[in-house]
Amino acid sequence: MKNNYAVIMAGGVGSRFWPVSRNSYPKQFIDILGTGKSLLQLTYQRFLKIFPAENIFIVTNIAYVDLVKEQIKGIDPKQILAEPIARNTAPCIAYASQKIARLNPKANCIVAPSDHLITDEKAFLDTLQTGLQFTAKNDALLTLGIMPHKPDTGYGYIQYLKGKDGGEKIGKVKTFTEKPSLEIAKKFLESGDFLWNAGIFVWRNSVLRQAMETHMPDIYKVFQKASKFFDTDKEAENILDAYSKCPNISIDYGLMEKADNVYVLPSDFGWSDLGTWGALYELRDKDEHGNAAGDGKIFMYDSRNCLVKTSPGKLVVIKGINNAIIVETDDVLLVCSQTKEQEIKQIVTDIKLKFGDTYI
Amino acid sequence: MKNNYAVIMAGGVGSRFWPVSRNSYPKQFIDILGTGKSLLQLTYQRFLKIFPAENIFIVTNIAYVDLVKEQIKGIDPKQILAEPIARNTAPCIAYASQKIARLNPKANCIVAPSDHLITDEKAFLDTLQTGLQFTAKNDALLTLGIMPHKPDTGYGYIQYLKGKDGGEKIGKVKTFTEKPSLEIAKKFLESGDFLWNAGIFVWRNSVLRQAMETHMPDIYKVFQKASKFFDTDKEAENILDAYSKCPNISIDYGLMEKADNVYVLPSDFGWSDLGTWGALYELRDKDEHGNAAGDGKIFMYDSRNCLVKTSPGKLVVIKGINNAIIVETDDVLLVCSQTKEQEIKQIVTDIKLKFGDTYI
Repeated sequence: MKNNYAVIMAGGVGSRFWPVSRNSYPKQFIDILGTGKSLLQLTYQRFLKIFPAENIFIVTNIAYVDLVKEQIKGIDPKQILAEPIARNTAPCIAYASQKIARLNPKANCIVAPSDHLITDEKAFLDTLQTGLQFTAKNDALLTLGIMPHKPDTGYGYIQYLKGKDGGEKIGKVKTFTEKPSLEIAKKFLESGDFLWNAGIFVWRNSVLRQAMETHMPDIYKVFQKASKFFDTDKEAENILDAYSKCPNISIDYGLMEKADNVYVLPSDFGWSDLGTWGALYELRDKDEHGNAAGDGKIFMYDSRNCLVKTSPGKLVVIKGINNAIIVETDDVLLVCSQTKEQEIKQIVTDIKLKFGDTYI
Repeated sequence: MKNNYAVIMAGGVGSRFWPVSRNSYPKQFIDILGTGKSLLQLTYQRFLKIFPAENIFIVTNIAYVDLVKEQIKGIDPKQILAEPIARNTAPCIAYASQKIARLNPKANCIVAPSDHLITDEKAFLDTLQTGLQFTAKNDALLTLGIMPHKPDTGYGYIQYLKGKDGGEKIGKVKTFTEKPSLEIAKKFLESGDFLWNAGIFVWRNSVLRQAMETHMPDIYKVFQKASKFFDTDKEAENILDAYSKCPNISIDYGLMEKADNVYVLPSDFGWSDLGTWGALYELRDKDEHGNAAGDGKIFMYDSRNCLVKTSPGKLVVIKGINNAIIVETDDVLLVCSQTKEQEIKQIVTDIKLKFGDTYI
């Protein structure tokens, strides 16, 4: 267990869940489920069950370091890696990988986003153990593939060879496919050869480093160079230099689609990337009229299938309204038809053009 | 003109226009039309065009005296009559009548609510002049009756004898009818003998006093008794005593339905009592999609026939929502179907039962 490490990626600034999620307070720091815990806190606490605290790293934007400290009480500041610039997942993982390499050459790692929902914690932890056992023995880049239960067009898909080259369950990856059309997504589902790409990875750190050196050598090298200054007062300056030399690139595109030792572990632990208000609505507890309104002073009359999330203390009356997403913060009110909620992202772009970052 | 007086009744605490209108800040003090002026300010400024400022009295609850002073800049405090208890319109009018009687025995008066909408100011002022000319010559209690243009079930109706006993236009009143059913309202409209009761009255003060002495002598007498202390430091105390002895009764019920010298002047000046959000929606300027959203940071996408009124500075996005009333204040959010808005009053009652006056 002391060789097992977890890297939580918590740098996102996404406009999903606007207007609750903001550049200054993004999704992973929000109690979006109404459980009293943020998604980051839920993710961290899950990992604490099978990783020692000193083996859990959180990579986040420098702007959110204080938020991480506030939400993960007592965390050793050394466990927080601050990204000076947002450059997608490849530089993030390269940085964490160099950090861990200095601590433990035998490290076996999980890398996971901080802002996903996992409802079956036991299945998730069992899956991680299976994955870690596999990568402990195999020079593999393993990704978790979620068993799809509908032809979702919002996810990337992984095509794999069942049961080949990977023991009983784990399969070798054939292709990665970006968000497909509905028609293609349906065919993927029918074929049974496709899984959802959850962006959760398992690998020995040494295997990852070798693959990065081969497939994304520029990024690998800038962090290797910077690593000489880790844990000195020159770390921040050298990390800034490294990030400024990195392209904006995902680990999927930079590494996973190129390497040939990529495997997938079919998984089923109640996962959602919580990508939209609609996805959240589907997952929230609902009353007998299909309303997910939570515990506030929210009064629903003659209304069905509404998601309501408003600022604390606000008295809310919803009367004769169906299939709506109603979200209110101190400075923004959003009332959106459930059928139109995919278009919120475009609206956020419009508002940014008009008002800059004020409401973003 | 120096004999002409106006009494503006501004004591209402109604729950109409909740949650914008509150007990502490009721409808008449709100810029409900988005014109930059409250309904009281609009009413006062209309009367200023044909009445000297010193002949305009505002009767309001003692709790709103400061609001009146704030909104009607420079008003002489003597022009504000403070009601210590809300007792409907009969005591209000009896108090004002005693006040005016001390100033001018020849006073010819208009009495009007502060919170109605009048869109055709010229027609309104012409109507008032017609009314004042009539009451100057006749010992009549005159009420303005609005020419109905739809079978509205929210108004009281006045049945009258056209052109009889009242000169060319003015008619003698036969009956007052409270809010009718739709069926009856349709019949009223067809008959052509019915007008809407606007609660705007014209009379010589001496004629009013005589009628009150006859038909509501108890109320008349307590204010006559109190009037000895007017403009002394004992006025407030004696007015409190007078109000505490008054029943809660309207001038319609207490006087107009009983007296036999009651006349009505058929009128048409773009009137609405602005009784509900729906009534306001009908009157507001609307964009090409039927939305009345005003000038705030309000963005409507794929939405039709919505009324939106939110707190200043709030960014509002409405997407894919039709036929809704969306009203937000610092502490309340209301999202209500246009077809259900008549039921807001019941909801306000529910909320009062639950939270007392906090949100009322």
